[in-house]
Amino acid sequence: MSTDFSRDSSTQVVVLGAGVIGLTIAHVLSKDARYKIKIVARDMPEDLDSQAFASPWAGANWSPMGTYNERIYKWEKTTYDKFWDMIPTGLAISSPSRVFYGEGTNLDELWYKTLVRDFRILDKDELPANMKAGVGFQTVSVCPDAYLPWLKSELLARGVEFIRRRVFTLGEAAALAGPNGVLINATGLGARSLIGLEDKDVFPIRGQTVVIDNPKVHEFMCTELTNSDDGNATYIIPRPSPNGFTTILGGKYQKDNWDTSFSAEDAEGIIERCAALAPAIKDPETRILRHNVGLRPARRGGPRVEAEKLDLPVKSKWLTEELHGKQGTVLVVHAYGFG
Amino acid sequence: MSTDFSRDSSTQVVVLGAGVIGLTIAHVLSKDARYKIKIVARDMPEDLDSQAFASPWAGANWSPMGTYNERIYKWEKTTYDKFWDMIPTGLAISSPSRVFYGEGTNLDELWYKTLVRDFRILDKDELPANMKAGVGFQTVSVCPDAYLPWLKSELLARGVEFIRRRVFTLGEAAALAGPNGVLINATGLGARSLIGLEDKDVFPIRGQTVVIDNPKVHEFMCTELTNSDDGNATYIIPRPSPNGFTTILGGKYQKDNWDTSFSAEDAEGIIERCAALAPAIKDPETRILRHNVGLRPARRGGPRVEAEKLDLPVKSKWLTEELHGKQGTVLVVHAYGFG
Repeated sequence: MSTDFSRDSSTQVVVLGAGVIGLTIAHVLSKDARYKIKIVARDMPEDLDSQAFASPWAGANWSPMGTYNERIYKWEKTTYDKFWDMIPTGLAISSPSRVFYGEGTNLDELWYKTLVRDFRILDKDELPANMKAGVGFQTVSVCPDAYLPWLKSELLARGVEFIRRRVFTLGEAAALAGPNGVLINATGLGARSLIGLEDKDVFPIRGQTVVIDNPKVHEFMCTELTNSDDGNATYIIPRPSPNGFTTILGGKYQKDNWDTSFSAEDAEGIIERCAALAPAIKDPETRILRHNVGLRPARRGGPRVEAEKLDLPVKSKWLTEELHGKQGTVLVVHAYGFG
Repeated sequence: MSTDFSRDSSTQVVVLGAGVIGLTIAHVLSKDARYKIKIVARDMPEDLDSQAFASPWAGANWSPMGTYNERIYKWEKTTYDKFWDMIPTGLAISSPSRVFYGEGTNLDELWYKTLVRDFRILDKDELPANMKAGVGFQTVSVCPDAYLPWLKSELLARGVEFIRRRVFTLGEAAALAGPNGVLINATGLGARSLIGLEDKDVFPIRGQTVVIDNPKVHEFMCTELTNSDDGNATYIIPRPSPNGFTTILGGKYQKDNWDTSFSAEDAEGIIERCAALAPAIKDPETRILRHNVGLRPARRGGPRVEAEKLDLPVKSKWLTEELHGKQGTVLVVHAYGFG
């Protein structure tokens, strides 16, 4: 046995899905030369207008959502710190932030108090007219229009292959990884359709946002994001942009709604609610650049991040597959349902 | 004025949408060299797995739907005859057909009796066990996987340009056609989102089908297609395929349902209902090749096929556009909502 043998030995990794989750996992794994990585997906990172894909429509910043969960806290902290470290590259920016709450929230004990930088309770005079309480901190944001292509270019430079292919079944995906391979299932909303998985806990949360150009709107602001019964969420996300600085105004948060069509009524409501927080939005110099409608890939019970082993060939009742006689075990790592 | 002048004079036509409707209109217009045609679309004819696009999922055959309407009868007859004439090319095939009805339908007076070839009333012994009455005729079908690329190659050969671009507003589309230009609005379900049009009469009808390989299932069969309350439609469409002959089993017909995810329950129901009409579907040699889920671009009140004139620049409340100072009149021809 020579040292050459161990250097040559490699593990085939297939990442199914080319959104932020799939590309980020590939980015981490590709630092280890023993992994030979292929990203297989129906939608590619450059498909920034694809409606079958969530990442292009993301805000995309770190914002506090949900309640405390030890495991998720670690993911959130890693994400926040990672984006913070990327600020010098220009891909991420930091923004001052204000988050507003109704009365009755214990602001001193918010779960993300120790996660973010410069956390503080807001004084009354820092609250917009219609708000009762709030906290301040620094957050970080990226722009998917630049971030996804950057991830792809990094991955290409590291020898990662991108293959555009629609995969119908979990068995077909496992066969692509092959015996002793690893399959990363980063299919987002697609996990509901992937035959042999068909995770019906996965569901869409419809989002709509307005992208504006007004450098005076430079602070991240939001009200509690996910507690609304009317499908309204209110948030303002300043972010870097390939063409300079832009701001996202949001939004809608409509569970189990698959409608990807633009709604003028929603846009009107978003602008009104955001302008109540940041009146500069109504300045005549504000330019509306575009409207985004997308589906957040959520999951009842929370994200699924866990491994299982599948024995090849994986048979499917629903599709007659050519499995090329592959036999062996594939490690499947599920990573979807982040909402 | 020389004859050269009239030969050089041309009209700029922008077709918005690259589905079967947009490409077909471009195909007809491109026979006249005076039209300079650009097809502008978010989804291109080769995007056969795009979920934001109806054409790749179409059956696609001539089948009797709806009730008699003089204007629509002419379109239906033109389509049927056109596909019939294409049979020698191999892009279309003819199939024997049986359509089944409940009792109480006057079979002698069906509106399509004079439209199709070889129309006849079925004998009792030609009816499947669970059917009461029916008619027979010859229909024609194509396969979108071959038909869309063929349309594109014909158009490219005639100098038609294809431009991948997401267009947000009717004004932006009109500006692309320019003063004295023509805009063909073939946006399908997108007509609901196109800002400045936002036709809320447009709605999706969810479809799901199973594609099988079994040459013994070679007859088009269906029950009444659009009258079901439970979202079930039952149809079998034999069609040519780039890899030989395949058969579509359908389907679902769910109004206002945007869900593009695969449903195993729906697939099960489709196979059972189709096998009741054509028992050979349950033969062991039947191979399931794929599952299709798509959204039919329907419209309350029926398809919109009409012209209007727009004065440039067209202003939008919802988007700050760069209109490059274009002034003049654009003829807009709407052609969407065919369901």
